[in-house]
Amino acid sequence: MQLYSFFNSSTSYRVRIALALKGLEVEYHGVNLRAGEQRQAPHRALSPIGGVPVLVDNDSVSLTQSLAIIDYLDARYRQAPLLPGDPLLRARVLEVAQLIASDIHPLNNLRVLGYLQGVLNVGPEEKDRWYAHWVAEGLAALEALLQRHGEGPYCFGAQPTLADCCLVPQVANAERMGCDLHAYPRVMAVYDHCQAQPAFQRAAPGRQADFIQ
Amino acid sequence: MQLYSFFNSSTSYRVRIALALKGLEVEYHGVNLRAGEQRQAPHRALSPIGGVPVLVDNDSVSLTQSLAIIDYLDARYRQAPLLPGDPLLRARVLEVAQLIASDIHPLNNLRVLGYLQGVLNVGPEEKDRWYAHWVAEGLAALEALLQRHGEGPYCFGAQPTLADCCLVPQVANAERMGCDLHAYPRVMAVYDHCQAQPAFQRAAPGRQADFIQ
Repeated sequence: MQLYSFFNSSTSYRVRIALALKGLEVEYHGVNLRAGEQRQAPHRALSPIGGVPVLVDNDSVSLTQSLAIIDYLDARYRQAPLLPGDPLLRARVLEVAQLIASDIHPLNNLRVLGYLQGVLNVGPEEKDRWYAHWVAEGLAALEALLQRHGEGPYCFGAQPTLADCCLVPQVANAERMGCDLHAYPRVMAVYDHCQAQPAFQRAAPGRQADFIQ
Repeated sequence: MQLYSFFNSSTSYRVRIALALKGLEVEYHGVNLRAGEQRQAPHRALSPIGGVPVLVDNDSVSLTQSLAIIDYLDARYRQAPLLPGDPLLRARVLEVAQLIASDIHPLNNLRVLGYLQGVLNVGPEEKDRWYAHWVAEGLAALEALLQRHGEGPYCFGAQPTLADCCLVPQVANAERMGCDLHAYPRVMAVYDHCQAQPAFQRAAPGRQADFIQ
């Protein structure tokens, strides 16, 4: 399998965590989002939207969208399952994953921040406020969901799930942007627990071949 | 089961299509997003992020996030399955659903357009350009995915899937906003086919109890 990824992309990071948790090795291809490589023709052939991650399996199947990729990996490689069998617990895991993947992350990725600054002429302070606004709204909801439905040390119990694959990159991103995260103790406890695990450490941005200081 | 929905919400519309395809009846509760009902305390108890849809099952389970709700319904009610059993086809369906749910819709929903206008003082023309930009980028990618991997009349063959539950509300939304959709013939053929089916018609905004002209 081959993974097209950018070290600093949250969605790539989700897939790297899933691969590491399952102990799967891939051929890693860095796609430099800062240099716009994702919009060039060779990459568009793999990803029509011009994004990362892309998983290429058997040299023929090229699959985009981090949550679709993780679902596919989870169906194909059954070790360390990332989606529980119990329907309600499974729904809770997906609820958390989708909250992050649909309500938080899409508003704060590179292409959106680029549009705000490049087209709408939004200044750096207003851009940071935009970022912090969606993170605060989303993490407050995440904290409430985990407090209601989850038990530690991971989002939902003793085993990592898709929810943790999504939580860690989102919190890492918010930390990097300097957001105040003290209001989300349960979220941060999960984050700290995950960051102490070797699989999560292997997936971290700083450990990737295309890492730029 | 009870569904908290707003007639004009794309994510509620996805769940309504899934329910109609499966022939499931629910008690319908309108939540008026224009009046801000989703942010008030009674609704926040059901949905920490303050959104729709919310599914309440057995008077106790309250579940948010449209794709998590549809996955839950699909696991619980096996008639008219919305996710294929074949792992690769399943991945293709999820890829399309996530493209719409993560890369198109989150940028154009009411809370985001409200922030652009209310906080960033973006004018109506620039707001429409923002809307059209993300729709054009996303639908071009959707068109490419369907042309590469799907066969009609639905997104992926003769039976409707989760992909169609997501496509129809997104295209309906883009039409309402006056976007030019001629560049996406395969997307529009799927849309037209779906709109001719009774289940999709029952789920339409104009047929809901909380419809406002």
